Amino acid sequence: MKALFFKNNKLILSKNHLPPLPAEKEALIRVTCTGICATDIEIMKGYMGFEGILGHEFVGVVEKCSQKNLVGQRVSGEINIACGKCLYCKRGMERHCPERSVLGILNKDGAFAEYITLPIKNLHLIPDSIPDEEAVFVEPVAAAFEILEQVNISSDDNICIIGDGRLGILTAQVLETRGCKLLVEGRHEKKLAILKARGINTRRVTEVHPEYTDKFDIVIDCTGSPSGLEQAIQRVRPRGTVVLKTTVAGKRTFDFNELIIDEIALIGSRCGPFEPAIKALAERKIDVTPLISKVFTLDEGIEAFNYAYQKGVMKVLMNIR
Amino acid sequence: MKALFFKNNKLILSKNHLPPLPAEKEALIRVTCTGICATDIEIMKGYMGFEGILGHEFVGVVEKCSQKNLVGQRVSGEINIACGKCLYCKRGMERHCPERSVLGILNKDGAFAEYITLPIKNLHLIPDSIPDEEAVFVEPVAAAFEILEQVNISSDDNICIIGDGRLGILTAQVLETRGCKLLVEGRHEKKLAILKARGINTRRVTEVHPEYTDKFDIVIDCTGSPSGLEQAIQRVRPRGTVVLKTTVAGKRTFDFNELIIDEIALIGSRCGPFEPAIKALAERKIDVTPLISKVFTLDEGIEAFNYAYQKGVMKVLMNIR
Repeated sequence: MKALFFKNNKLILSKNHLPPLPAEKEALIRVTCTGICATDIEIMKGYMGFEGILGHEFVGVVEKCSQKNLVGQRVSGEINIACGKCLYCKRGMERHCPERSVLGILNKDGAFAEYITLPIKNLHLIPDSIPDEEAVFVEPVAAAFEILEQVNISSDDNICIIGDGRLGILTAQVLETRGCKLLVEGRHEKKLAILKARGINTRRVTEVHPEYTDKFDIVIDCTGSPSGLEQAIQRVRPRGTVVLKTTVAGKRTFDFNELIIDEIALIGSRCGPFEPAIKALAERKIDVTPLISKVFTLDEGIEAFNYAYQKGVMKVLMNIR
Repeated sequence: MKALFFKNNKLILSKNHLPPLPAEKEALIRVTCTGICATDIEIMKGYMGFEGILGHEFVGVVEKCSQKNLVGQRVSGEINIACGKCLYCKRGMERHCPERSVLGILNKDGAFAEYITLPIKNLHLIPDSIPDEEAVFVEPVAAAFEILEQVNISSDDNICIIGDGRLGILTAQVLETRGCKLLVEGRHEKKLAILKARGINTRRVTEVHPEYTDKFDIVIDCTGSPSGLEQAIQRVRPRGTVVLKTTVAGKRTFDFNELIIDEIALIGSRCGPFEPAIKALAERKIDVTPLISKVFTLDEGIEAFNYAYQKGVMKVLMNIR
């Protein structure tokens, strides 16, 4: 099969990769559409030390499965493959199973390929009302919904999202479903315009003066930049909460005393629940279409990555066939 | 008056410092006993950039006060001096007032002196059952109680305190009042013995093997060391909580991806409520006497600091007269 894999610091398009064989309780899925995530790009900078087929945002059709009613169905899939037996799995924390593999990120080939395998229990049916190019967003929208599982957000809370990239825009739309007081701070007029069009408050970072003092109850760092954390700490009020939503390869230098003196809670946030993401996309409460910058084919995979690296580009998709 | 102050990177004992004049709504307090805190030592390394009379752990007698019934009373005092007017003060977050000064730490001369002034509303009466040398501990015990205000601790929670110094030992005793499952990890047999004698589980760090894998729901860093945070992250379970209880001068390098991947909540914790601290000391639920390494006089202040710097030393007190 065709596959786009990362090895020895190189992205390689192969035309005769061996297709994966489904293990017991796994389904074989023919991938139809995928998205390039910032995490894929971080992996290429060394994050997670992963080598193999990249890609974890996907939609596809079940080709082989012991659960026959799933065959032929359109699905997306949870990317964390848990053991199902450990203490964490038993507590319902499968996404934190210490034995987990992660699709296209850790010990499991990903979705930039014609076929993938995933445990049947990881699959979620995609309603017909969500076209392929939107269904690819289920995983990142789920990651945004994770914040609602971690932080108790009330309608009184003043929330600032820093970053007007893909995750910032998805997170803003997810939080908007909760009706809190929301401001998105970004660098790009065009990207902020997507949110403005949906009635969400925005502000360009350049409008922020050094003596800027208004403080937020909750600040969410969606910058994907090492500097995002310090910006977030500057914006949050004492005893407020900062959510770190984006991984950045490498260590960062930080003055933890600010955190201690202001008694700030800093919360790491990763993958999230698929159900509310699929529901929100099906009910069109979240509009991902303005995020699609360009659609490539898997054959154009290298070009697609080069395109995704460019400034100002939002989401790059690859149709697999 | 006599005073021990820090200026131009030097600790100086003065015998003819001008006594402070109480402002409106302030009391003049004759200090009787004080404690040297790790924060005092961090200030001498550059933390907060403070210059002036050090010291914020104290007990004294009210000498002058517009509230006449307080004159002659033994008191301790909250160290954060708030404006009382801002949004934070109105929300009951006086300890986070952005206009605050802090006794012996920020824009306010501290307690290593014969006299201090403090707002009357900052004062707390000390019951006769708490002798001076124990009353000095009200402030650090209050700081330990702050954790209970910030983190919802249940009796099922497995908690690890890292650090067997003063704050570790106080924090352990405070958490023990909640009946959680507690383990204190430290480097010093003698210090851990203080906790063992009270029936609290302890473990020497040297007993921890590299492949050590048991994880805690909540880990509290009381090490006062830049390495404490990474130790805490190693010990905490995914979606667990790490409380940072000690300030360390300077920035630290840290891999935030661990925090994000494991969705850990990192909570800074500083000063705390005096009432439960005074109550616990009065009821002898917390025993601070084993922590007192040596008692000096203010005249021996320089010597007292040199002593406090030594390895293995716990709390150093200074009687003022």
